[in-house]
Amino acid sequence: MRMKFALGAIALACAGAVTALSAMADEGMWTFDNFPSATVKKLYGFAPDQKWLDRVQLGTVRLESGCSGSVVSKDGLVLTNHHCVSSCMAALSSAGNDYVQDGFYTRSRSEERICPGAEASILRSTTDVTTRVKAATAKVTPDAVSAARAAEIAAIVRETCGEDRRKRCQVTSLYRGGQYKLFVYDRYDDLRAAFVPEEQAGSFGGDPDNFSFPRYALDMALLRLHRDGKPVTFSDPLKLDPAGAKVGDLVFVSGYPGSTERQLTISQLEFQRDHFLPWRIEYLSQLRGTLLNEATRGEEEARQVADTLGGIENSLKVFKGQRGALVEPSFFSVKVGQEKRLKDALAADASLRASYGDPFADIAVVTEAQKRSFLPYQMLEVSFGAGSVLLGDARQLLRGAVERAKTDDARLPEFSDARLPGVERRLLAEASVNPVLEKVEIAFWLEKTREYLGPDHPAVKAMFGSRTSGQIAAEIVASSQMPDAAFRKRLWDTPALATGSNDPAIALVRIVDEAARAARESYEVSISGPVSIAAEKVASLRFAVLGDSIYPDATFTLRLSYGVVQGWTDPAHSEITPFTQASGLWSRATGAYPFNLARNWVGKASAIPAATQFNFTSTNDIIGGNSGSPVLNKEGRVIGLAFDGNIHSTGGSYGFDPELNRTVSLSSQMIVVALRNIYGANALADELLK
Amino acid sequence: MRMKFALGAIALACAGAVTALSAMADEGMWTFDNFPSATVKKLYGFAPDQKWLDRVQLGTVRLESGCSGSVVSKDGLVLTNHHCVSSCMAALSSAGNDYVQDGFYTRSRSEERICPGAEASILRSTTDVTTRVKAATAKVTPDAVSAARAAEIAAIVRETCGEDRRKRCQVTSLYRGGQYKLFVYDRYDDLRAAFVPEEQAGSFGGDPDNFSFPRYALDMALLRLHRDGKPVTFSDPLKLDPAGAKVGDLVFVSGYPGSTERQLTISQLEFQRDHFLPWRIEYLSQLRGTLLNEATRGEEEARQVADTLGGIENSLKVFKGQRGALVEPSFFSVKVGQEKRLKDALAADASLRASYGDPFADIAVVTEAQKRSFLPYQMLEVSFGAGSVLLGDARQLLRGAVERAKTDDARLPEFSDARLPGVERRLLAEASVNPVLEKVEIAFWLEKTREYLGPDHPAVKAMFGSRTSGQIAAEIVASSQMPDAAFRKRLWDTPALATGSNDPAIALVRIVDEAARAARESYEVSISGPVSIAAEKVASLRFAVLGDSIYPDATFTLRLSYGVVQGWTDPAHSEITPFTQASGLWSRATGAYPFNLARNWVGKASAIPAATQFNFTSTNDIIGGNSGSPVLNKEGRVIGLAFDGNIHSTGGSYGFDPELNRTVSLSSQMIVVALRNIYGANALADELLK
Repeated sequence: MRMKFALGAIALACAGAVTALSAMADEGMWTFDNFPSATVKKLYGFAPDQKWLDRVQLGTVRLESGCSGSVVSKDGLVLTNHHCVSSCMAALSSAGNDYVQDGFYTRSRSEERICPGAEASILRSTTDVTTRVKAATAKVTPDAVSAARAAEIAAIVRETCGEDRRKRCQVTSLYRGGQYKLFVYDRYDDLRAAFVPEEQAGSFGGDPDNFSFPRYALDMALLRLHRDGKPVTFSDPLKLDPAGAKVGDLVFVSGYPGSTERQLTISQLEFQRDHFLPWRIEYLSQLRGTLLNEATRGEEEARQVADTLGGIENSLKVFKGQRGALVEPSFFSVKVGQEKRLKDALAADASLRASYGDPFADIAVVTEAQKRSFLPYQMLEVSFGAGSVLLGDARQLLRGAVERAKTDDARLPEFSDARLPGVERRLLAEASVNPVLEKVEIAFWLEKTREYLGPDHPAVKAMFGSRTSGQIAAEIVASSQMPDAAFRKRLWDTPALATGSNDPAIALVRIVDEAARAARESYEVSISGPVSIAAEKVASLRFAVLGDSIYPDATFTLRLSYGVVQGWTDPAHSEITPFTQASGLWSRATGAYPFNLARNWVGKASAIPAATQFNFTSTNDIIGGNSGSPVLNKEGRVIGLAFDGNIHSTGGSYGFDPELNRTVSLSSQMIVVALRNIYGANALADELLK
Repeated sequence: MRMKFALGAIALACAGAVTALSAMADEGMWTFDNFPSATVKKLYGFAPDQKWLDRVQLGTVRLESGCSGSVVSKDGLVLTNHHCVSSCMAALSSAGNDYVQDGFYTRSRSEERICPGAEASILRSTTDVTTRVKAATAKVTPDAVSAARAAEIAAIVRETCGEDRRKRCQVTSLYRGGQYKLFVYDRYDDLRAAFVPEEQAGSFGGDPDNFSFPRYALDMALLRLHRDGKPVTFSDPLKLDPAGAKVGDLVFVSGYPGSTERQLTISQLEFQRDHFLPWRIEYLSQLRGTLLNEATRGEEEARQVADTLGGIENSLKVFKGQRGALVEPSFFSVKVGQEKRLKDALAADASLRASYGDPFADIAVVTEAQKRSFLPYQMLEVSFGAGSVLLGDARQLLRGAVERAKTDDARLPEFSDARLPGVERRLLAEASVNPVLEKVEIAFWLEKTREYLGPDHPAVKAMFGSRTSGQIAAEIVASSQMPDAAFRKRLWDTPALATGSNDPAIALVRIVDEAARAARESYEVSISGPVSIAAEKVASLRFAVLGDSIYPDATFTLRLSYGVVQGWTDPAHSEITPFTQASGLWSRATGAYPFNLARNWVGKASAIPAATQFNFTSTNDIIGGNSGSPVLNKEGRVIGLAFDGNIHSTGGSYGFDPELNRTVSLSSQMIVVALRNIYGANALADELLK
């Protein structure tokens, strides 16, 4: 499981039951200030107290690249997943030096290397700012809501964090506009890789085994937080308990789930099911085929595309699982039942109708329009460049030049004063560019944009001119100076150099930027804006009917999930036991990718006790973004490292099935044994247990 | 538009109207023995008489590769589409000699070249054999229906055609089991290419313009039918009328539409919408990306994959259009209304219920099971090898050896005595193999089979062993003797050589064949068999309620469609005029693929009168398989050559919208002018007009 997007249910067990709206056993990604302690205590005889929660909050790390982690030593060591640092490994690698494939090991702290552009955050405080944000948008016209809200949020952030680079302030909507909260984090921008195993150890079984179980993945990595050139010290880290997990153990997963869509209305789910997901699956499947073929050209090509390809294959499994859940009548009828309960309440109560009107109908009108407008918005704005770093940087430079000339409140939000330092930092960081990957991505994006918008679309005609997509991509990769950090800095520091640049990447961005901005503005005015207004009404209605017995959709803010170590009964098969042991790895290894052993593991069967606990499953409700989360026992010690869900969980963006959805974690037993017996990293193992 | 699959409607205009069950203006692919002459006469003041119909039937050609054509000269010249002979061009091409790209021209008949394995048929007679076929299945158990029906059909074919290689006998079900008809054709197996323009002339605009209009495609080719080494003579060919088309002209399209699914039940449509089509789109999109990337490696790689890639891109547009139609509520509600009419009739009439039970419910039970069983069947049987000729031939050899040892009625139907000569002929024909394409297809098929069936599926484990998909594919391509026609003949002639062969292609087939046969048998017993029984009941019910006012689904049997030359009003745009002219080509040509001019056209703007009619649209209801059909005027002369539908027609497998669906044809004006002025093929042009 990679960082982005959802885990969840193929079929909700309680089909048709309206009580599904309140959380079922083990369901929920709960905020720390509304954790259902009474429920957990009743079910399992234990619930975390405030001290437990506070300690775990301070030991849980958000990696800004889209993952979670935990502080596991007094000297700032952070435990996370291998797949959460593979981009860092790719960035540190070069043609002769492949850390993704070979892993990255240190014998002393001086060998640790900075992950370019990486940032981490630890939550310090949460403040409810709902009243203030809603007041700012209460009296403006609908098409001005987004801007007014963004301005008020920027003001709150400015007042709280100012210029302090050691803090990160964010206002995030919970319950889809039901609440707005200000989150203040300690911010870290010096993260150093200390231990990263080989890709083939981290993701043994590759795409075929991803979202599967039984499993044998050492999906771990250790980073160290630095500040002012020194490791950050923590007085009370979440230390490892090397005993691992036992069946039936009550366990907690603390982390930053990225995004769920469990509170979407039926018309929004239909849009996802019938339009967005099918489009995205088609788009990514073609890109997947392209990259898989590119990777067969040679080792260097394979190296360059590996990380992106892995992300795409992971996303595809998720999107297919999401679509699969939504076309399952037993699943969809639960969602219909949930909405019906709210609609019935609305129909029965004139005062509710007076307050909210019919927000479900409002959203349905918008989703109808969305079918026709989402592709230009996606291709020209959201998916611009299909991941190309050259085009992405070129756009940041060109837009940055244009936007910074405006007053703060007139800019695109990503160029607001509050966010500019982050933009600048990421843009100017030293990072290697993969020309093979870039060429593929740029040509692919051009082709798909022409396909979806048509060869007669003005922006398409202007971009292509009398060239093919391959020619355009080749020229950009051959001639753009974007890979040169000093060049980017010159253009960033002197906006006129950016707006006047003949760099071919900037030239392409310039051709399309007016159309891209128009697509974005049109989408925000006619889709996102009206939806957010109506969604706030749905959220308020939901509160009015259900109170705070529910948890908010995941928003990459801190959450706690509870559950037990447990297998499941597969509808098509038999009982799945919740553990794998080291012995299973050797028998599953065929020798051929992706079932080949990582380099350091070859011939090492005797080095690891056969019964060493490897991976295990639990009933926790997690989703992409939770990758790297600690699995904690009642004592708040780390007994596992969450890295995946089972296949039934891939639809979890929309719902959770306690019978089938499982979190997949790496056992603390294997973490310690592998560090010592395979990698000889005794110092790190000792540090984790100290 | 390629040969396979559907053309049709995005939205039926008469949403909700139950009268949509009977054909609307211009809708329908009518059999020649039930052509709605009265309706056409009423609408347009003219209807074809029996003589007209008989003459057109004998002038219409079925190309067994999945296309249509027309006899346009007394010396057996057949006019069809470029894209219908591109496989022939690919087969005749080799590394230094690319007829696909360069075209194929002859100055005399002696230069004409045989298309390897190509066959054509012209329908001579049609006989209703419904009573006999239904009697054969009336008293057998459900799981024996398929076999009993196949045996009776084989007997009918044997009795009628015997060993006569000059005839082709086929019994085909019409109205999904409502009727069975015996079609007797003249069979031709010596088809020679006489004129084929460059790929870039035939499909100017490539995939972006496919299923689009305005359009500038010279999608034509001329083949000549031979028998006993001489051109076949025809006394009354469908001659060209070089005047082309006029707006409002009544026109007829005669040809062999391949397959529509307009009579599927709602549960079958839901299966298509939610399961089959999304799977197929995902599968083909990945393969498309793979081949597009392969094609960028070099000219030879591009040449080898071009034909397959074109077919995939065409299919993808169709499948996406089909899915798009089915998720459109206004479209789907028409289908629901049509089924409701039949269900209401059933509910109101006890005698109908006594005869048919509830076949809709019967089918719904099966489609529920189909969701779980279609992937093993698809991957191991239907899509086996993903198009690989090496694996396909190997399977024919191995299965042929096993099946021929059985009695005729115990064999897989494709190895029945009646069909063996065709199997043998195709299998033993000389044809070049494309190693680059083969390697891609074999590896792709292995990967996707593992993905869908799982790495623990016994057949998957056995196929992969300790190798990667790439290694297996490379070995087969490097070492298999399948490309050698003499080798294939030895193994065909001596079955023991096939069953005992160590050829790596045969070895792979052998590993998986038991599982493939089991998947097929299970699918036939639990899915196809029960569905065909229930579908016959639905068909009979439909007859009982609606009579013969309806046309049967397309089944690659001869059909006639009527319509008028007409543009359309695009929902999102303005009026689309029904013609393009030569002048438009020169302004649309950017110079870059796929908008570059074909070699012979460069600099030739002055050679062709600017106003020459190029392509035109008409309201005829056609679908894949109709490619190459003549567009005929009232006099039965050829004024156009159908080659495509507009984008609204891509969902036409499920329905027809007279407001939006259009056939796209090449004008006879341009056929004659291009032959003379671009290609200097005056002899052929003269022959067409004689």
